[in-house]
Amino acid sequence: MESFDYELMATDGNARAGVFHTPHGDLLTPIFAPVGTQATVKAVTPAQLEELDASLVLANTYHLYLRPGADLVAEMGGLHAFMQWHRPMLTDSGGFQVFSLAAMRKIDEDGVTFKSHIDGSLHRFTPEKSIQIQELLGADIIMAFDECAPPYDRAYNERALERTHAWAERCLKAKTRADQALFGIVQGGVFPDLRERSAQFIASLNFPGHAIGGLSVGETKAEMHAMLEIVNGILPTNKPRYLMGVGSPEDLVEGIARGVDIFDCVLPTRLARHSAAMTFTGRLNLMNAVFARDPRPIDETCTCYTCRTFSRAYLRHLIVAKEMLASTLISIHNIHTLLTLVRRARQAILEKRFNDFREEFLSNYHPCGKHTRNPEERG
Amino acid sequence: MESFDYELMATDGNARAGVFHTPHGDLLTPIFAPVGTQATVKAVTPAQLEELDASLVLANTYHLYLRPGADLVAEMGGLHAFMQWHRPMLTDSGGFQVFSLAAMRKIDEDGVTFKSHIDGSLHRFTPEKSIQIQELLGADIIMAFDECAPPYDRAYNERALERTHAWAERCLKAKTRADQALFGIVQGGVFPDLRERSAQFIASLNFPGHAIGGLSVGETKAEMHAMLEIVNGILPTNKPRYLMGVGSPEDLVEGIARGVDIFDCVLPTRLARHSAAMTFTGRLNLMNAVFARDPRPIDETCTCYTCRTFSRAYLRHLIVAKEMLASTLISIHNIHTLLTLVRRARQAILEKRFNDFREEFLSNYHPCGKHTRNPEERG
Repeated sequence: MESFDYELMATDGNARAGVFHTPHGDLLTPIFAPVGTQATVKAVTPAQLEELDASLVLANTYHLYLRPGADLVAEMGGLHAFMQWHRPMLTDSGGFQVFSLAAMRKIDEDGVTFKSHIDGSLHRFTPEKSIQIQELLGADIIMAFDECAPPYDRAYNERALERTHAWAERCLKAKTRADQALFGIVQGGVFPDLRERSAQFIASLNFPGHAIGGLSVGETKAEMHAMLEIVNGILPTNKPRYLMGVGSPEDLVEGIARGVDIFDCVLPTRLARHSAAMTFTGRLNLMNAVFARDPRPIDETCTCYTCRTFSRAYLRHLIVAKEMLASTLISIHNIHTLLTLVRRARQAILEKRFNDFREEFLSNYHPCGKHTRNPEERG
Repeated sequence: MESFDYELMATDGNARAGVFHTPHGDLLTPIFAPVGTQATVKAVTPAQLEELDASLVLANTYHLYLRPGADLVAEMGGLHAFMQWHRPMLTDSGGFQVFSLAAMRKIDEDGVTFKSHIDGSLHRFTPEKSIQIQELLGADIIMAFDECAPPYDRAYNERALERTHAWAERCLKAKTRADQALFGIVQGGVFPDLRERSAQFIASLNFPGHAIGGLSVGETKAEMHAMLEIVNGILPTNKPRYLMGVGSPEDLVEGIARGVDIFDCVLPTRLARHSAAMTFTGRLNLMNAVFARDPRPIDETCTCYTCRTFSRAYLRHLIVAKEMLASTLISIHNIHTLLTLVRRARQAILEKRFNDFREEFLSNYHPCGKHTRNPEERG
């Protein structure tokens, strides 16, 4: 197969199992990508990521552009060589971070002028500039420069959608490298007609893959699901679909159920740094005193290094003692949980039992909030 | 061989190569022990330590007594099981940390009352209590409770030595576990006659090993060397000698030259967290802008994971971006450097060329201070 061909291997309802070919290896979809914002998945070595059998890793264009600079990364051989991750990589466009700067950025039809969060220095991103930076970084999958508007502001979403569409065309024109796949991004907030219009327009541009942006940014789960159904009903089935920035276990399962192939999120590593372990039944706050003398691993069914090796009592000690190793060990476990979840979902799709898998998962899973511990741990 | 037998395999001048047998494996001396103060070598997993082929790891009684508590560690199966380090371990007595609390502790002939640095709560260590805690922790080598006095205060050193000697006898009486070796500690500041008296007294108590305390605490290198020569001239040759808290490369080589077998120090991991890489020619401050585009590893002759994998440019980026991975990768390298140094010293002793080894090492090595970079890096 050619690079960036997507083979759809099986469907089960709207859920899909496939293979996306990239210059650094195949992605077996559905897939979850850990995030390495600054060219490192926080607290985890590439060797540990390989042991977890992670395949796709995301890095952030905005952060790497500011520090250490895209030219430096290019001079060091590109992102793969720089961070020593030899499997597929994806960079975002920088748009989401820049628009998140709020008062520190100014948008016009041509691009965005913004101040660095590091030193306040003035910078400008345009679609062409974003592509140029992403070509210097050298990920396998790069993203169109888009505008992610507040989900409930219709007027803003209409204006942003026009820009996002015009910028998608400019990104396609600006792209020069044949060894990178540029994905277009569908926006439109929580508005069905805007999502429909955006999916149709983006699908018409013949990108090798499509992303769905502007979800998991404050809307309800029901709204997210409705938007996914509209968009994936329009996007072609012969190309991968990437739901950006989504990574809670229930969102992965519900996204896969609605035809999503690729996910990324900082959640597993960010939660790890805040003492929370992700399991198939919910989150454990390992800081909790109930774990102080608990000899069991985080999850007795888990095969990750952390669960094969360490007790909850030890992990809690590391957290209370503010030891860095806690972040490393819980990150390894959390990434393992999400990678295992999408692998099991894929297997279920291949075996045409995805709906049972989903039902069973959702009936056992207690999302964060009230249920932060395993049921067995409660009262 | 029995546990805690020491076999002297070769000598070269005063330098010694030997094997010390422990219940968790043999220590090939001279040896360097990384420090895992709170039951973790900071930022490094046990799997990474095994890959480095570290053998002895030290943990701190004072810290573990306060958090998570020695009873909890015992309930979890002891330190080896708790932190999942299955090779030999050593605990200190807690004395050094308690005496370092200055205004927060009060010494009498029976022991020390002190306030916790964590919450100010009141505690008391006696020789018997220190042994009891160390028996709960369960390291292979445990240490007598001693008093480390300011090196130049003769009157203080005389009083402290009396206590240290009386406490050494009490520790021997208090000890109950046959699977732990209790080492006695020689004190005496920078005073030759006190060191001589202490070495003679401690040697008379028939410990299975001896430690030299109160060095590298403010005295000059010449004074440290002189004290080592006096003490090791008295301590029996058929038992291991442990120089406590010493770990700079030049101090290891000079200690080995004077008959020391075991070293420990936080230096490699502490320096790593402050961006300093240890090499056989000196330290590199990897924060330095000169490394921003340097594609070389820290040390082109080094075989550690960090040097096999990552550039100085990448490590500097991680440091500047305040990424935890920097501490992990530089700690791995620094520990590897010291383990390699003592292994090379051992080989040189076995081959009766230690003096050449020492001369060559010292002529290439530029200690910290003026020389923080490789000569090749300089202007």
